[in-house]
Amino acid sequence: MSQTATVNGPLNGVDVPTLFATLDVVKGQRDLATFQFRAKSRWVAGNHSQLTSQGFYGAGTENEHQRTFVFDADHPAVLVGKDNGPTPVEFILYALAACITAGIGNIASARGVTLTRVESTVVGDIDLQGIFGMSDEVRNGYKQVKIRFTIEGDAPAETLREIVEQSRDRSAVYDIITNGVPVEFEVA
Amino acid sequence: MSQTATVNGPLNGVDVPTLFATLDVVKGQRDLATFQFRAKSRWVAGNHSQLTSQGFYGAGTENEHQRTFVFDADHPAVLVGKDNGPTPVEFILYALAACITAGIGNIASARGVTLTRVESTVVGDIDLQGIFGMSDEVRNGYKQVKIRFTIEGDAPAETLREIVEQSRDRSAVYDIITNGVPVEFEVA
Repeated sequence: MSQTATVNGPLNGVDVPTLFATLDVVKGQRDLATFQFRAKSRWVAGNHSQLTSQGFYGAGTENEHQRTFVFDADHPAVLVGKDNGPTPVEFILYALAACITAGIGNIASARGVTLTRVESTVVGDIDLQGIFGMSDEVRNGYKQVKIRFTIEGDAPAETLREIVEQSRDRSAVYDIITNGVPVEFEVA
Repeated sequence: MSQTATVNGPLNGVDVPTLFATLDVVKGQRDLATFQFRAKSRWVAGNHSQLTSQGFYGAGTENEHQRTFVFDADHPAVLVGKDNGPTPVEFILYALAACITAGIGNIASARGVTLTRVESTVVGDIDLQGIFGMSDEVRNGYKQVKIRFTIEGDAPAETLREIVEQSRDRSAVYDIITNGVPVEFEVA
């Protein structure tokens, strides 16, 4: 990251000086890095649910999003749903693509690289015999996920590739999906 | 599931006869259970990306959603983003809540239980020292996720609890998050 010293202002929509200042503050007070994200869901009908964003804890305090985000999820007609929203498993794909993309924005900016295009396609292969309970040998979730990035900017292809790979290596969602997370489950 | 024979029509917005007919067809032709879900992402600026739903393969053919779903993801101001959407890690929480909720809709309906309320709160604890690259001992993703369901309907509490637990045990997203999935990564 030897180019970082040359970035004295915003780049790619990232306020680079503030980004570095934020990292410096956290380096000096590590508990500011403790975050808790939250969501609420409400069943509507059939397979249709509504998800609502919540405030989150982080940087030593409670925070609110600037507005409340509301999403619908459902199953498609072929799975006897009403297609009022994406399937729950598609939200996993959104999370992965968005996380690595956000990191690319930060890393490229910190390295002084101006981005002109970052796109990805992501697919998840799943055998529904698992969730249908038809086979004990088939898992419930995706067998595999594939994500493919296209990136363009004012740096050599090799540098752009490194930025994407560095973002993957620092991606929260990539870690969650590839390594798993313990889930505590409760019915009130 | 001994009550299933008594459900002759729609319940809770689930067309139960069609649900069972669909399962019967798949039992007879297992390759119909092969699905592939897809998404596209496009970087907008900074940490902001836009996710767009795509068609999906399943039940032996290409399928389209009834409409295209578009979502924004971003980082909040405290993480030097513009808060144009939830964070990528919040989409993980939405996926989990939506998946188990959709299953509850199906399972309760198949068992002849009328639901009046299903809600969940889900939280994910994360130490951002991981993604900030400040500690090799801290993982990038959530340390743990906790989900808590409230369910009401015309069945004993024990039956309602069993329905939620059965849905968890057949949840694609619960499996993805707790057990992980291999991710194939490519930069074009």
